Parts: sequence; structure tokens; C-alpha cells
Amino acid sequence: MTDLRDMGQRARKAARTLRSLPTARKAAALGAIAAELRQRSTAILDANAQDVAAAEAAGLPAHMVDRLRLNATSLAAIARDVEAVAALPDPVGEQTAQQVQPSGIRVSQRRVPLGVLGVIYESRPNVTVDVAALALMSGNAVILRGGKETVQSNTALEDAIHAALQTQQLPADAVQVIRDPDRARMLELLRLDDCVDAIIPRGGAGLHRFCVENATVPVIVGGIGVVHLYLDESFVQGPQDVAQAAAIVLNAKVQKPSACNALDTLLIHRAALPALPDVVRPLLEAGVELRADAESLEVLRAAGLNAQAAAPGDYGNEFLALVASIRTVNGLDEALDFIAERGGHTDVILTRNPEQATRFVQDVDSAAVVVNASPRFNDGGQLGLGAEVAISTQKLHARGPMGLRELTTTKWVVLGDGQVRG
Amino acid sequence: MTDLRDMGQRARKAARTLRSLPTARKAAALGAIAAELRQRSTAILDANAQDVAAAEAAGLPAHMVDRLRLNATSLAAIARDVEAVAALPDPVGEQTAQQVQPSGIRVSQRRVPLGVLGVIYESRPNVTVDVAALALMSGNAVILRGGKETVQSNTALEDAIHAALQTQQLPADAVQVIRDPDRARMLELLRLDDCVDAIIPRGGAGLHRFCVENATVPVIVGGIGVVHLYLDESFVQGPQDVAQAAAIVLNAKVQKPSACNALDTLLIHRAALPALPDVVRPLLEAGVELRADAESLEVLRAAGLNAQAAAPGDYGNEFLALVASIRTVNGLDEALDFIAERGGHTDVILTRNPEQATRFVQDVDSAAVVVNASPRFNDGGQLGLGAEVAISTQKLHARGPMGLRELTTTKWVVLGDGQVRG
Repeated sequence: MTDLRDMGQRARKAARTLRSLPTARKAAALGAIAAELRQRSTAILDANAQDVAAAEAAGLPAHMVDRLRLNATSLAAIARDVEAVAALPDPVGEQTAQQVQPSGIRVSQRRVPLGVLGVIYESRPNVTVDVAALALMSGNAVILRGGKETVQSNTALEDAIHAALQTQQLPADAVQVIRDPDRARMLELLRLDDCVDAIIPRGGAGLHRFCVENATVPVIVGGIGVVHLYLDESFVQGPQDVAQAAAIVLNAKVQKPSACNALDTLLIHRAALPALPDVVRPLLEAGVELRADAESLEVLRAAGLNAQAAAPGDYGNEFLALVASIRTVNGLDEALDFIAERGGHTDVILTRNPEQATRFVQDVDSAAVVVNASPRFNDGGQLGLGAEVAISTQKLHARGPMGLRELTTTKWVVLGDGQVRG
Repeated sequence: MTDLRDMGQRARKAARTLRSLPTARKAAALGAIAAELRQRSTAILDANAQDVAAAEAAGLPAHMVDRLRLNATSLAAIARDVEAVAALPDPVGEQTAQQVQPSGIRVSQRRVPLGVLGVIYESRPNVTVDVAALALMSGNAVILRGGKETVQSNTALEDAIHAALQTQQLPADAVQVIRDPDRARMLELLRLDDCVDAIIPRGGAGLHRFCVENATVPVIVGGIGVVHLYLDESFVQGPQDVAQAAAIVLNAKVQKPSACNALDTLLIHRAALPALPDVVRPLLEAGVELRADAESLEVLRAAGLNAQAAAPGDYGNEFLALVASIRTVNGLDEALDFIAERGGHTDVILTRNPEQATRFVQDVDSAAVVVNASPRFNDGGQLGLGAEVAISTQKLHARGPMGLRELTTTKWVVLGDGQVRG
């Protein structure tokens, strides 16, 4: 049985080495990991095949089995991703300008790694490598708690990472996989607050809630949220505009329905209702089920389009599926009030009125506020972070996609020449 | 009985108003609060006298009664502090430069208030006003859970704040005091995660632990930590140097022994032991009890100085009193190892060797690392923040003294002209 405290203490020790590493050594470690993944691809794919066979034998649904499956192509892509992380700018060591205080001390803040991360996730084995690379590149040690169903894959991946760290004279304890990832081990990890600096869960709402309820280590909650798109009358003046609105709405809902930044609720200005059938027709063609309020439902049915009446629970709800709700509003004010009650993740306005856009950006308090584009851009890669470890939906520490910088903290550096406090 | 959920929802609503206020209106609100405090000073001091009388009747220790006592002078100082906060730079609205992504979207991050804060503290009524001012100036609503023994004072202070908010056409719900602050109310506040964005406890280790154990709202832990000072041989070459070391050590331990940034453990280079008697003599004269390891104890006793043998528990311990431990080390490496096991709050090196200073700053992972000055500088005012709401000892979100900026978060702003994700 894994001794979590022992793992935690070994991670702390490794973190002390990692935090002072120059960028080049961290990048070299990631390069070595990519090389080991390539060299050991047969062993890794064999281990993965065992997980897949066990999952199939246990009767796991096909889409879950798919998530844990690796092949030569996906493993090669994982190795390339590690090299991409190695090329990102290193936030560690950044320092603010020294400010001389009235006492004469010189004060600055220096960016340093968080220390030890605990990452809790489910089946996908690519997360194991992805998170290990991001943790190492930002100078952190990491304890990984993957799913039970991927233990063979994760063990093989951990072996590859450890071999790579060894070639670089770096401590293997920098990346540790919990090999018996049951619920009791997860609880121990969540309460290891003298060793672990942050818990990052990656998974569904249930996992995040479990972490929040049980952790004494600070948790960064993410991945859950309702996405609104407000379509203003000003946006749909001609057929080309309507087509653009339809394209954005389609992309928002259909490109990846299981993503946290996929559209949930379309808010439509009453005066824009005549455009609604053309805006949602591509959604229906893509198989999206629409749940509409009375007014919009009437317009859709009059146009011969298929929709059902929305229930109250269809608003403020994250569907994660090919379902969307529609609500008619009197204008921007009502849309803002609606979003204030239910938003917080990604909220979009489509408008041709710059003052409306400014008001929307000012008033909506979401991780990402988007004007005239798809909510799907709320993503680390799309926003320019290079890579993301998770998407935070809380406000403390990090909000929205988290890249390398969000895996760091700061320390105050005070330089004196004998000062005492008066 | 207070309905915490109702308070939370009203706070959320108020927060929506506050987050868009221009700096001048927030500053005007603080000005109005200062004016109300002055105008109502008789009523406030009367209410406070009731609290003091009840505390004395209940047999509270004198130092605790002192903490809750206000007088005309201290109340005037509180009003002046509010005006000082009003003059601080407003972090809200700061925006990073727009970056155009390959997709054509323009991306930036804008600084916004956290939203609703929950602050839990004990007897001192000045905290009520202090925290309310910092919360308002950073655009946040706040729910204040002060001590039971200060309810009359806090109610009078809340009345003054509400009157001031009313004169400024601002929602009174921006600042709400829990008027029946028992443990059940505190538990409710800690679990109000759909209304409260952050819990900031201000108090002893027990309060912080209670919050961490019970909260589902993210908690910023602070106020607790062990402070080390490593005295290197290079620092004590002549009598003037020894006197400087003695002055720093005295300031570190004696200026405010109850503070979290007061010295706990003096680490001394073996070769510097001959200077030890002169370094600690002022401590002994100030009534400090010394607990020394065998080697340093021998030196102290040979010099006719009073000290006792340290027990293992005297290291890695926060004394919060006129007690300090002493430990002899072989040099910087041993000091760094010792601090790596026990530090994390404020750690100091006294050295004349710039390479040692650089290594210490690099290797020690504390909220504040100090070279050749007193650890007492780890304080919001001394570091240039203008004011502090608390001192964080965790790594997420804020580390060390927290000013207005640490009461904010960011949101992503994405401006497009019709982009969809490819």
C-alpha cells in the first residue's frame, strides 16, 4: 500500500532541487522524457493494451475505453507535446523591479515554483505525461493520482519519466504516480497539507465537489461552468450577419459539446427573433436538441423547426451534450441580469454596438468575456498560454486556463544593510 | 438568527454594483465612512464600553479586554487609516496589453475584484473598519464575522458604515457584520461557496486550522510561521559588526514578540560562537528566555549568561513570546537544510559574503527572504503595500502581506470580429 506521507516528503525534497534548476536543465529533462517515451513505445503500448483489455472485460462503456486507449500515433503526439512545453518561456525567476522603502531596505518579488502539486484525474493516460511536463518545466514536483483503470499505462509512463530524470541526474521523486489509486488514497492526498501546496482536480463536477468537500490542501476548482451567448438585435441586420451568428453559435455548441466552454444557453434579443430560425438551423442539422422559452419556441415552430419547451432547469445548466436552451430577453440589461445569476465561466455577446460590447465586458464577471467570437476560444492554447494544466473556475490564484505561470507563486526578497524596524 | 445564505446573496448583489465603481466613488465612500466614525464617536465608544464591561464581568484576561477597548484617540486613528486606504492606488481595471492570436482574436487580462469576501477574526474592533475599507476600495463586498465579545462595538461600527454608504448611494449590503457570531454561523459562512469567493481568517493557529478543516470556500491561510535568522561567521568580524547583529536580533525578537514575523530560532555558524554572548546579551536584558543547543549553551554559560538546554520541540516552533531557541550549524549548507525543514514564513541571513546572500535568497522558499535586515520588515506597510488585510503563509493566490491587489483577480477579455475556433 502506498504511504502517502512518505511520497509527500520525498516530493518536498525533490521540489527543493527542482526550484533552483536553470531553464535549460528543465528543458533538457523534458527532452529526455520525450526520447524515453519514443524508445519505450512498445512497452507503454503493451501496458496500455492490458488496461484496455481489463476495461473491456469489466464492461466499461466504449467512450470510456476510447479515452484510455493509446496507439503509436497518439503516443508520438504526447512526446511532441512534451517538447512543445520545453520550448515555452520559463516564468520562474522573473523579478519585479527593486523598490527602495523609506527604511532603506530594497524590496522585490521573485516568481518561484509552487512546490508540490497534487493532480487528480480520471482515465486519460496522456494527462500523466502532460501534467508531469508542465509541473517539471515550472520547477514543481507532482504527485499524480490517475484512474484505477489506467494503472498499467501510468506505471509504464512513470517508468519512462523516471528513466529520463535519472539520465539528467534529477530526482525521480519529482514525478510520482499513486499506483493504488483508490478513494482512501485520494482522501489522504487531499489532506496532505504539510507536503502538498495545491490540489488540481481534472474531471467532472462530482470529482471537483469531492475535492472541495474533503481537502485541507488548497484546491483549484475548474472545468465546470455554464456558457451564455447573447445575440443582440444589432448583430443580425442582413443575411451575411445572420450567417455569421449561425456559424459562431454552431461552433460554440457543436465543435466539442463535452467541453466546459461549449454553449449552454442562447439569449436572444426579442427584436432579433425573426433571425432565430436561420441562426439555429445548422444546430438542428448537427443533431442539437433545442429547449426554448415560449416566445422563441413559437418562432421556431412557425418556421417548421423542431424544439421543445424549456423547463426552469434548462437555464443555468451545463449540458455537456448536444443540447442547448434558448431564452428571449428584452435587451442587454435583461441579458446581463440573467448572466449575473448564472454565468461565471465563459460568456459571449454578439453585437455591432461598441457601447454594448464595452458594457458587457465591464459588467459580466466571468473567467472569460468574449465579444463577437466563439466561447471555444477560452482555452490555454487559443489564448496564447502555449499549454494548459487545467481551467480554473474559481477566482483565487488563477482564473481560466492555467499555464506554466499559474503553477508558480512569488516570494518577497528584502535586501538590507543592517536595518531594524523603527 | 442570521440567515447566512440571505446575507450571502445580498452580498453578491452588492458586489455587482461595487465591481464597476470608478476609483473616485470608492474613495468618496471611504471618506464618508471616516466622517461618520468621527460624527458617531460617542455612540461607538458607548457601545464599546458595554463590550468592555461585559468582558470584564465575564472575567476575560486583561490583555484580551485591552484588545477590544477603543478610546477617542484610537477611534480617530481608525478614521485616519480609512482615509489612508482611500488614497492608495486602485488595482481594479488594470489591463494587460492586447495580444493578437493567430486566430485574429485580441486577448487581454483585466484586473477585477474577487467579489464577496468572508473575513473571520477575533476581538479587535478596529479590524471591522480596516477590513471594510480595504474590501470596498478594492471593489469587494464583505461579510465580517468578528468575535462574540465585540458585538456591540461592531454593530455600532456597521451602523456608521451603512450610514456612510447610504449618503453615497451605495448598497449597505456591501459590508455586513454577523451579529450572532457563534460557531454554527461561522461554519455556515465557511461553506457558503456559491456566494463567497474567499475566506480570510485573522487570528491564531487554531482559527486557521478550523477554517482549513471545515471550509468549502477557498481559504487564505496566514499569520502562522516560524522565523529563522542565520548569523554567518563573515558578519561578525569586528565589535561594530557584532553590535549590528545584536541590534537586528534584538529587533527581530523583542519589538513585537506576539507578531508572526518575530524571531524564533537563531542559527549561528560555529566559527561565530565567540560573538554569541555579545549578540544575545541585549535579548537577555530584555527578558528573553534562551533555549540553546549544547555547543552554544556552553559558550553562553562560560560567559556567565543565562540559558537553558533546548528540547527538540524548541526548533520549528513559533513562540509568540519572549523565548528564542539557538542552534549551532557548520555553515550555510546546514542552515539551509535546517530552514528547508522548518521555514516558510520569514527567514533572514546576516552575512558579508554576497555569494552566500545570493544562495540564501535562491534556496530558501519562504514568503519573505531577508538579507542583513530584521524579519520584522515582512509587513504590508514596510514592504510598500500601504495597508494589509492579512499575511498569507500559503502559496496559492497571495504570499506574504496582502494589500488591495491581493483582493482582486483577473478576467480574460476576448475581442473578435466573427472568429470561430478551427
